[in-house]
Amino acid sequence: MSKLATNTKKRDVAIVGVGSTPIGEHWDKGLRELTWDASIAAVEDAKIRGKDLELIIVGNMSGGMFVGQEHVAALVADFLGLKPTPAVRVEAACASGGVALRQGYLAVASGLYDLVAVGGVEKMTDVQAGWATSILTGAMDFEWEAYFGTTFPGIYALMARRYMHQYGLTREKLAEVAVKNHYHGSSNPLAHFQNRIKVEDVLNSSLVADPLRLYDCSPISDGGACVILAPAEKAKQYTETPIIIEASTQASDTLSLFEREDICTLDATVEAAKQAYSRAKISPKDVDIIEVHDCFTIAEILALEDLGFCKKGEAAKFYEGEQTYVGGTLPVNTDGGLKASGHPVGATGIKQVIEIVKQLRGEAEGARQVKGAEIGLAQNVGGSGATVVVTILRRR
Amino acid sequence: MSKLATNTKKRDVAIVGVGSTPIGEHWDKGLRELTWDASIAAVEDAKIRGKDLELIIVGNMSGGMFVGQEHVAALVADFLGLKPTPAVRVEAACASGGVALRQGYLAVASGLYDLVAVGGVEKMTDVQAGWATSILTGAMDFEWEAYFGTTFPGIYALMARRYMHQYGLTREKLAEVAVKNHYHGSSNPLAHFQNRIKVEDVLNSSLVADPLRLYDCSPISDGGACVILAPAEKAKQYTETPIIIEASTQASDTLSLFEREDICTLDATVEAAKQAYSRAKISPKDVDIIEVHDCFTIAEILALEDLGFCKKGEAAKFYEGEQTYVGGTLPVNTDGGLKASGHPVGATGIKQVIEIVKQLRGEAEGARQVKGAEIGLAQNVGGSGATVVVTILRRR
Repeated sequence: MSKLATNTKKRDVAIVGVGSTPIGEHWDKGLRELTWDASIAAVEDAKIRGKDLELIIVGNMSGGMFVGQEHVAALVADFLGLKPTPAVRVEAACASGGVALRQGYLAVASGLYDLVAVGGVEKMTDVQAGWATSILTGAMDFEWEAYFGTTFPGIYALMARRYMHQYGLTREKLAEVAVKNHYHGSSNPLAHFQNRIKVEDVLNSSLVADPLRLYDCSPISDGGACVILAPAEKAKQYTETPIIIEASTQASDTLSLFEREDICTLDATVEAAKQAYSRAKISPKDVDIIEVHDCFTIAEILALEDLGFCKKGEAAKFYEGEQTYVGGTLPVNTDGGLKASGHPVGATGIKQVIEIVKQLRGEAEGARQVKGAEIGLAQNVGGSGATVVVTILRRR
Repeated sequence: MSKLATNTKKRDVAIVGVGSTPIGEHWDKGLRELTWDASIAAVEDAKIRGKDLELIIVGNMSGGMFVGQEHVAALVADFLGLKPTPAVRVEAACASGGVALRQGYLAVASGLYDLVAVGGVEKMTDVQAGWATSILTGAMDFEWEAYFGTTFPGIYALMARRYMHQYGLTREKLAEVAVKNHYHGSSNPLAHFQNRIKVEDVLNSSLVADPLRLYDCSPISDGGACVILAPAEKAKQYTETPIIIEASTQASDTLSLFEREDICTLDATVEAAKQAYSRAKISPKDVDIIEVHDCFTIAEILALEDLGFCKKGEAAKFYEGEQTYVGGTLPVNTDGGLKASGHPVGATGIKQVIEIVKQLRGEAEGARQVKGAEIGLAQNVGGSGATVVVTILRRR
């Protein structure tokens, strides 16, 4: 089994600055402007200068296919005026942000770097929506899935249909995931969608891939997000409220859905979560808030189970009595999730972590602040679960 | 200035296994098969099992645009049967391989991981050659260069023309770079081109972008390459002849050529080389063999100067008297370089390092073995120099 070598003491890593753009359709901004806006905000939040940064990691899924731009990390270092600082782009489909964060975490935890910026960015709206869906199939197995016409709505529809069959989930209950996320998004000024919706709105929206309808699907969004990492022992230099990365774990699964024994669970989530709880020395019941990867409503259901918050087949019960709302026992996706706050794929994993940081700092805007939250967890998924990153954060 | 935090003792890292595919046109292999062939060879060379690997890093430039496949690291982990081992794709254009190696180096040097596979792969021939040239413009600044029709032959032609004007380099002398690299390629059974050529062949080949002709340009190649990294103190478990990574440094420069003060030098090469020599505690005169990034003949000329092997404007002298040939004072690109051995962009940085490893082990095939080589250096360039990685290797 994959493991971190256990013979070495690591040091703790803190997030000391965060910044993000509004998520949505940015007709006046490209990759470089989105990066600029998010990075400057993070650098200012950490009260550092850009030149203090020793390493830049950038999560970006498909700059090449979306806007003709690979070599995105070099673009970032250049446009921020940071040459010759080394800059590394990492890509793991929609988990690019999470994997980037983990690479930055390892760089600081190792003792090799002190001050690292980890950004995520995606500019998706410069192509028409249908073509964006085609580009996103780059996250699945091209030869065994995409080539035959599979799309991600189709993949997740297979999971949803199977789950409904196996565990009795109703179409109405599934809709409640989107209703809750739009409700949360309505108090997030950076969210792509800030309108509230009802179950009937979901049920009456266009069919995309049966049983998934338009309001089950996260949107095509532009956006950038950035966090600044520092060793925990030096974190108070930069911020009053450092947030500690208690665990950052990553696991792989088959790239194709058909190779899985059970398409109602993401093995990589189960594995990454197991490792994360072990490293953070906590169990799911210790977690106060979570951000999970609801690229489609069904994905949030699977995440709650795979992360250990309930048994397989029982997540739907969570949506009774507003337990998953701010004020409930386990607030889920308080920023609106991918569904309402948006899904700029390379930035999403960073955006999730920023929401947890804001919540743990007590800085979430308006009605969505969870009172007294101390431990948060983020789950970031690439493709249909071939890559999953789990991050556990704690206020100290 | 960017720097490694200096407060932490690192441990040494060794390359304990190498493997690569033949470089060329692989009509019967895709990304996964190329990866498979290279990885299996490396794993066998290190006498380990795949399951012993704790982390996989994959350099790939444009899987999305070349073959519709992003999420390449997950594909690799899946196809090698290594789930749930974490797998990370890194991209830095044609320096993707070098940056991947550096990420793997940091993972082991930090003490966090013991056994790491670093691969590079690119499948370029599934698109027609003209379209491949367009895809490769993803490595430059899309908005300020590629959008206006710039191509890489055009960019390097600007450098070549300026250099010829400024330093009196002749067209004939420039051709000798290609002649030497084809000569070396002729004894490399994995090289894309194994034919020898003459100066007249270069001068009579098709004009691509004045003054560069077809034989000044590296080819569009498919290929995969993989190295296995381990802590130096454990390296003898795996191999009789571990090769130590004495330095792995990376620097950034502007993405666009027009922003540079001097287009006859790559600042990122100068910076990365300075850091590398400092860390390895050597100077250029201690280096026995080098692999440099001759995507175009002029790039090899610039590299010799920027790496400190001669003064600016004087590299052409190196091509008198066969000094750069095997048997000369400084053998350059003994595998044939990018020009003859091929340039599968994401794999190139790994392929270069494998040639150095073979040379230092004394395992280079046939006539190209350099006698008694102890220290080798590889320089891997992304774009027109926005990312440069320098690796110094030593036999102990």
